[in-house]
Amino acid sequence: MIEVQEAVKIIEDSVLHLPSVKIPIEKALGRVLRQDVFADADFPPFNRVMMDGIALRFKDFEDGKRDFKIIGIQAAGSPQMKLNGSGNCLEVMTGAVAPASADVVVPYEDVEIDSENNMATVQLDQFQKWKNIHIKGSDKKKGELLIETGKLIDSPEIAVAASTGYTELAVTKNPSIAIISTGDELVEINQKPLPHQIRRSNVHAIATELKRFGIKSNLFHFNDEKVVLENELKKVIKSHEILIMSGGVSKGKFDFVPETLEKLGIRERFHRIKQKPGKPFWFGVGENRKVVFAFPGNPVSTFLCYHKYFVPWLKKSLGNYEVNIQKAILSENFNTATRLTYFLQVSTSINEKGQLMAIPKIGQGSGDHANLLISNAFLELPGDTFSFKKGEVFNLISFRNT
Amino acid sequence: MIEVQEAVKIIEDSVLHLPSVKIPIEKALGRVLRQDVFADADFPPFNRVMMDGIALRFKDFEDGKRDFKIIGIQAAGSPQMKLNGSGNCLEVMTGAVAPASADVVVPYEDVEIDSENNMATVQLDQFQKWKNIHIKGSDKKKGELLIETGKLIDSPEIAVAASTGYTELAVTKNPSIAIISTGDELVEINQKPLPHQIRRSNVHAIATELKRFGIKSNLFHFNDEKVVLENELKKVIKSHEILIMSGGVSKGKFDFVPETLEKLGIRERFHRIKQKPGKPFWFGVGENRKVVFAFPGNPVSTFLCYHKYFVPWLKKSLGNYEVNIQKAILSENFNTATRLTYFLQVSTSINEKGQLMAIPKIGQGSGDHANLLISNAFLELPGDTFSFKKGEVFNLISFRNT
Repeated sequence: MIEVQEAVKIIEDSVLHLPSVKIPIEKALGRVLRQDVFADADFPPFNRVMMDGIALRFKDFEDGKRDFKIIGIQAAGSPQMKLNGSGNCLEVMTGAVAPASADVVVPYEDVEIDSENNMATVQLDQFQKWKNIHIKGSDKKKGELLIETGKLIDSPEIAVAASTGYTELAVTKNPSIAIISTGDELVEINQKPLPHQIRRSNVHAIATELKRFGIKSNLFHFNDEKVVLENELKKVIKSHEILIMSGGVSKGKFDFVPETLEKLGIRERFHRIKQKPGKPFWFGVGENRKVVFAFPGNPVSTFLCYHKYFVPWLKKSLGNYEVNIQKAILSENFNTATRLTYFLQVSTSINEKGQLMAIPKIGQGSGDHANLLISNAFLELPGDTFSFKKGEVFNLISFRNT
Repeated sequence: MIEVQEAVKIIEDSVLHLPSVKIPIEKALGRVLRQDVFADADFPPFNRVMMDGIALRFKDFEDGKRDFKIIGIQAAGSPQMKLNGSGNCLEVMTGAVAPASADVVVPYEDVEIDSENNMATVQLDQFQKWKNIHIKGSDKKKGELLIETGKLIDSPEIAVAASTGYTELAVTKNPSIAIISTGDELVEINQKPLPHQIRRSNVHAIATELKRFGIKSNLFHFNDEKVVLENELKKVIKSHEILIMSGGVSKGKFDFVPETLEKLGIRERFHRIKQKPGKPFWFGVGENRKVVFAFPGNPVSTFLCYHKYFVPWLKKSLGNYEVNIQKAILSENFNTATRLTYFLQVSTSINEKGQLMAIPKIGQGSGDHANLLISNAFLELPGDTFSFKKGEVFNLISFRNT
């Protein structure tokens, strides 16, 4: 039995290096970028008008001029016009190129327009040169690195890559993942369980979670029969890069998962972690770097192990090494009866002081998955004490996006 | 021009009531539940063994008995067995039904097994009745409400609904949403912009964001020509329930969006909010409750307005009224030059004290969408002062999930 930190380390040592694939930019949400994205032009690509109004020469204004002759309109999307001669101005629209020789834009609210005579009177005593002009290249220069490989792609990345001409992006190819439940007590959702049976649910929780990464997984169920398990697992290992299993890893007479995996060439890296829930977690790696996460079958155990161990490993395997450690404050005193690291179910909220508070939602143990309905995270309470005080700060493992 | 709070209120008054639709449970992530989910059986449905070990009568133990005859194995998924006679025990597996008459489970680590003679010796001096048995109905009772209508569906909801037999769930039918850019300066991603053009990007950011809710949207682009705009908008209004527009709402000569929408029967509810960015935001509602959010075209303006105004309205329109106000602490003094509510781009992180800190990421204004790459939220700074102090707490509008 090993410590939580050792388990984290061993799993991290088995991070995969997955290949990349080009996909249309519209489909890239939640994927990990596998190329650098560069600016194909300056950002903005021209001196860009930021307000509707008039564009003029700052020099004219500085020389005391307030009345300007309107010599035309510079619309957005039209080729650049030119301010000819002193004392002239052009009406300019947001998004337009600033006219050549113009170095300031006065917004309509600070101008009086005499349409009959095509004159504009500026009603300000002072403003700065280049005001309301977004200078070419002031955000980013042509050729500059905009988004680095390894970034988890969200809407700003898609917008910026679109604006600089990327119709496709290289992202990490999704690995093939099998999610396998074991246990003779399990039946399908559409079946009516006998008095000693329950329906499968862990596999559906994990398949749902994987969708956040754009990953489609394959679901399997095997009963607790040694020969069947071996034959079926052999096929699944052959056709998948990653196996997530639920059940069959504790000390029961029919817990054949570890020995069967070993037989199939998956070498145990650890079995059992000093934690609650999820103690019997088995982890192994086989030839060709097949990685097997065999979680205990209790639903809260499977769910905790998935979020605490699998997700950080998956992100790294996809090429996303951004670390995002979350912490939260325990909202009330809490006692445990275990020397194991205890993952307490909590509901978090941000209080008026801007503190992230974690409110315990204890539930009835690792079999009580209905308790996950009222929780959104686990608070990681170390095993070196039984007594945790209100106001203390601990690591937080979030599992909801809201 | 109205205050931010007034705009929020007016938009909230236009919340839609959308119909519901049944979908397979596997597709329900991110959707809003539109039915109550009830337990079809007790949770757990039987007295469930929580540890591998032996099951016995607590009375025997209380009477001083420590050696028990093993009369069989109660496997998970097998019909319930019975403890016949005093002094007997059954080996039991996690997930199995507790045998009839058994009221305690002693885990293998606290038992010595003599396989030859089929005897088990308990090596504990005391434990509690019902220990390691998860009592039938202790989490939830048959018929009890598990998940209430209006809940945003995440993986725990899917797991719990699956375990109680729901192969389908009623969720809110996705509304038809059109996302429309306007502006003669815009070209497609795959085009090479002329010196006065830029590529469309706002519509791609919003289409990406809508995918989080499982919503597919339709994208359009119209140039700044009155007649074209009117004809095309007419068709789009007819075929969609919700329009999100970007551009054409400020004071420019070619900003025909508000007048065109009015002409097509969309009545203005407000135009212009005392905020920066996003001041020219126009909002209107037409016959048959067609709702139009016409955002200013600068990318940061569109993005802010989408997250501050559209998302809360969409959630409510989908039937999800859960309020999740976020707050964060300003990490350094910050001064503004405006009396408008200022939405400051920030990057948040949780510090060692469990405080959510917001670090300003100022950027070059509403045209600088590359700045969104290094931000994950907006901090809402009220317009009643210019000077904001380190340590003050403000509302936070998050826009990334990581």
